[in-house]
Amino acid sequence: MAAEAERTAVPPAYPCPPTRRRGETLERAIFDAVFDQLQAVGYVGLTMEGVAARAHTGKAALYRRWPRKEDLVVDALEHALPSPSNLPDHGDMRDDLLDLLRRMTAMLNSPAGCALQCLMSETERDESFARLLHERVKEPRKRMFLDLLARGAARGQVRPTAATPLVAEVGPALVMQRFLADGAPVPDDYVVSVVDDVVMPLLRP
Amino acid sequence: MAAEAERTAVPPAYPCPPTRRRGETLERAIFDAVFDQLQAVGYVGLTMEGVAARAHTGKAALYRRWPRKEDLVVDALEHALPSPSNLPDHGDMRDDLLDLLRRMTAMLNSPAGCALQCLMSETERDESFARLLHERVKEPRKRMFLDLLARGAARGQVRPTAATPLVAEVGPALVMQRFLADGAPVPDDYVVSVVDDVVMPLLRP
Repeated sequence: MAAEAERTAVPPAYPCPPTRRRGETLERAIFDAVFDQLQAVGYVGLTMEGVAARAHTGKAALYRRWPRKEDLVVDALEHALPSPSNLPDHGDMRDDLLDLLRRMTAMLNSPAGCALQCLMSETERDESFARLLHERVKEPRKRMFLDLLARGAARGQVRPTAATPLVAEVGPALVMQRFLADGAPVPDDYVVSVVDDVVMPLLRP
Repeated sequence: MAAEAERTAVPPAYPCPPTRRRGETLERAIFDAVFDQLQAVGYVGLTMEGVAARAHTGKAALYRRWPRKEDLVVDALEHALPSPSNLPDHGDMRDDLLDLLRRMTAMLNSPAGCALQCLMSETERDESFARLLHERVKEPRKRMFLDLLARGAARGQVRPTAATPLVAEVGPALVMQRFLADGAPVPDDYVVSVVDDVVMPLLRP
């Protein structure tokens, strides 16, 4: 009887959001809630319900767009990182590199960076998530640095043999190591030093 | 009555080790057991009992030397890494760098590297352990790379302004990032490429 009642019970109404929010504002609140949940309960503990509650929205709104929590988490990270469609273009190699490395650092120094750190450690054994993170988050950002170098080489600002994936990796690897070793914030003078004392000397024609 | 019996019961004898082992052999078995336990149950799950059982030794033997598990874990890691008292000295900057970076990579490619990865993620919020890891494991190895550069500069093999902590960090940071991104093994041709295509070009006088 109890089971029957359970089956026929009307599902509880989701709490109404305090205001109707659309598009970017709601998306921003959801992504912030993702980072908040990642820090508070980790990836394993993160639930669609928890994110919805934290973002003051309904669970259904989340499921409509993100069928699985991994899609939501990866979208949130991707959104916090520099977009590959928006490569810096100051006409100067140093300025472009510094701009892109600063954008990456700003993400690490934000709640998204802290969430990324939790995530990297927790999902290390989750191969399917690690692959998603690699394809959607890491690879496109690596590619951005390589694209900067290739463009610099085409303009004669970069020694052509230096426009390689390995050299492109140097700046982000140093910033990431510093972040993992000492935590946030990675100071701006460190980023400047990485560009001026390491990356630029490798690129000069 | 049962409780009374429990309180007065003779503690169970520890299983006898299959053979009497002394010094290095026993130490090696203990450190191997530490890495094994770190991979199997993580740092939080690792116990002196578990390590003793896995190494076929008594818990008392462990406690005599390592009062706390953090001391044991840090000693095990330190032992698996290149020793600061044994800086490579081939008389050639490239050979020295490649030697040291290969030793570091060999550790990452071993069970100790896998254990280190678990450890880094799990102890991220344990400030006291993170500090111990920093002081006893990370800093002395960073220092080794800097010492190599300083010696190279003194010999005229390295541009003096390149013998800095930041430049010293480049090789290890790239190998570490590769390890964290793609897991073990980090291939030797990657290590060679880091030395020849990135670090050496930064050092040339």
